[in-house]
Amino acid sequence: MTKQFLQNPPSDTHKLGEFELIRDIFMKRAEQMMRAKPQHAPLLGIGDDGALIACHPNEELVITTDMLVADRHFFADTDPYLVGKKSLAVNLSDLAAMGARPTGFTLAIALPKQKQAWLHGFANGLFDLADLFDCHLIGGDTCQGPLTISISAFGMVPNGQAIKRSGAQVGDFIWVSGELGDARLALGYIRKEWSLDLDAEELNRINQRLHSPLPRVALGIALREIATAALDVSDGLLGDLRHILEASHVGAQINLDALPRSTVLRRQSEAIQYQCAASGGDDYELCFTANPNQRHIITSLSKELGLPLTCIGQIIEAQDENLLILEDGDGIPLSPEKSQALLRSFDHFRD
Amino acid sequence: MTKQFLQNPPSDTHKLGEFELIRDIFMKRAEQMMRAKPQHAPLLGIGDDGALIACHPNEELVITTDMLVADRHFFADTDPYLVGKKSLAVNLSDLAAMGARPTGFTLAIALPKQKQAWLHGFANGLFDLADLFDCHLIGGDTCQGPLTISISAFGMVPNGQAIKRSGAQVGDFIWVSGELGDARLALGYIRKEWSLDLDAEELNRINQRLHSPLPRVALGIALREIATAALDVSDGLLGDLRHILEASHVGAQINLDALPRSTVLRRQSEAIQYQCAASGGDDYELCFTANPNQRHIITSLSKELGLPLTCIGQIIEAQDENLLILEDGDGIPLSPEKSQALLRSFDHFRD
Repeated sequence: MTKQFLQNPPSDTHKLGEFELIRDIFMKRAEQMMRAKPQHAPLLGIGDDGALIACHPNEELVITTDMLVADRHFFADTDPYLVGKKSLAVNLSDLAAMGARPTGFTLAIALPKQKQAWLHGFANGLFDLADLFDCHLIGGDTCQGPLTISISAFGMVPNGQAIKRSGAQVGDFIWVSGELGDARLALGYIRKEWSLDLDAEELNRINQRLHSPLPRVALGIALREIATAALDVSDGLLGDLRHILEASHVGAQINLDALPRSTVLRRQSEAIQYQCAASGGDDYELCFTANPNQRHIITSLSKELGLPLTCIGQIIEAQDENLLILEDGDGIPLSPEKSQALLRSFDHFRD
Repeated sequence: MTKQFLQNPPSDTHKLGEFELIRDIFMKRAEQMMRAKPQHAPLLGIGDDGALIACHPNEELVITTDMLVADRHFFADTDPYLVGKKSLAVNLSDLAAMGARPTGFTLAIALPKQKQAWLHGFANGLFDLADLFDCHLIGGDTCQGPLTISISAFGMVPNGQAIKRSGAQVGDFIWVSGELGDARLALGYIRKEWSLDLDAEELNRINQRLHSPLPRVALGIALREIATAALDVSDGLLGDLRHILEASHVGAQINLDALPRSTVLRRQSEAIQYQCAASGGDDYELCFTANPNQRHIITSLSKELGLPLTCIGQIIEAQDENLLILEDGDGIPLSPEKSQALLRSFDHFRD
């Protein structure tokens, strides 16, 4: 741990106590959970120079990290409970995409003075999600600064069973979980990019997709023995899928009409539907590839999990620079202009 | 990985390329190191949803995390090479305090636009230190925002050999590595808290202690079988030592005159010497406790490592609230006022 030496005037002892209180909030919650779920707890949690995790010879450790900056990744006035929940959810989504079972996470947070009330809400959201997935807070750092949250999450996967981006094979079907585009629709509504005719219940539903994504952990674990490649859809389906294609040296043919969309999104113009579902981002669904002979198993899995799993296309041989062929429902390729527009619309929001 | 959706105007494609370039810098350096040092490399590094690390049944994993905010933990105009080096060093110092061998780290960094030049320097410093300790960059996240760096570092320690804060025993000697207080002296000089009569070479030496700490990794590993408790001195010796005392439920008697100080610091007033060495912070030395019968082994270790290891006091039974007894060189306890002033001066800089 480092201290923050540059801005604390020597007479300023008051703030320090406040920051200690903050540490206490997190330590107490972490300790409560360790007592409640000792079977998943680290050997040593918060409070030493580092945490200690036991290694199992049959498992590999999966590590992922994400940083969220206020007014960039989330609106600073968003309910802190939702920010806390989402901060961890986006990391568990990465673990899910690897087929890992979450075990723990570290939290580093910079926050402005007088944010104690905010932090209580944040901690509640964070720990509610952590509790849901038996994922322990094992270390952290709290300091003063512009509101920034950095989480590293850890998971376990049996040796050799992690699902990588590089395993897609020509002929594999391409699948996506849940529905795409509602988070982007909600964002566009908040940003006033488009005016939508939505009732309160519909607005609530799409806002929930934006603010309260649920990582597909059970799906990821089930996919270890089914999928050849997977990732989580966070930056928009087409852009993310491209990472699988590049890592696997293959191409893909995507049926845009097959993209799973909510009834709310289906009521919007075709342009908005395509933009949101194909390139929107913040979906936190899993996109994966699997041999066609897995089709029935995937259909059963979908029923078992109560989660739609939709086949949206197929892996094909890579054709030079043109990795992605987009088709409409009749199998007719989109015009190069239309394709480009969709792919560009992804690019706009990357970073 | 999450995208940063809130501030990118839809027409803003230029920045994106820049941020991709940034990712490239780190990915290339990480891959170079994985090729150069395959024996320490992760199973899967940067470029997937998560990294993969093999577990060894005889080892436990140590995890630590730190966040550094510009103009709080470092001056924004500090040479980025030094910031990069120090960002990793403070984390490896935590690993060293646990007796762990560093293996990898993740980096999450938020930085303002047009900081590419800064980032090259930062990456150079970061990887120079990583290379020195065979510590691989295994994952990361880069986004736009107020300059904030968050690193999680991972290390391995043989089962049961991690050095915790809770193991100090009554009668143990208390040791500290290297010299204390130069970093605080340099900080006071920069902040104009005091005017010092220093020549260029002396100034350079204390600035180096502030900006370029070297984690005591070899010492930490050697201490696994010697120390009963350890931590790294980052927030000031007395305040940090208190964490050992609280975790171990013991007290300590400290001889202030024994605190190892550089010739530069010894030339300053007694008040400055005490304040810097006892409560200064940013030393990144190890403070540890060991049974008195380890004295000769520790002396030999000091010679072997070429690093001073100085006995500064002894663990005693805890006496209510008064965990720390401070004495001068003649064994005479400091007046309560003087003791309090020293302990308070630590508190000022915590957080």
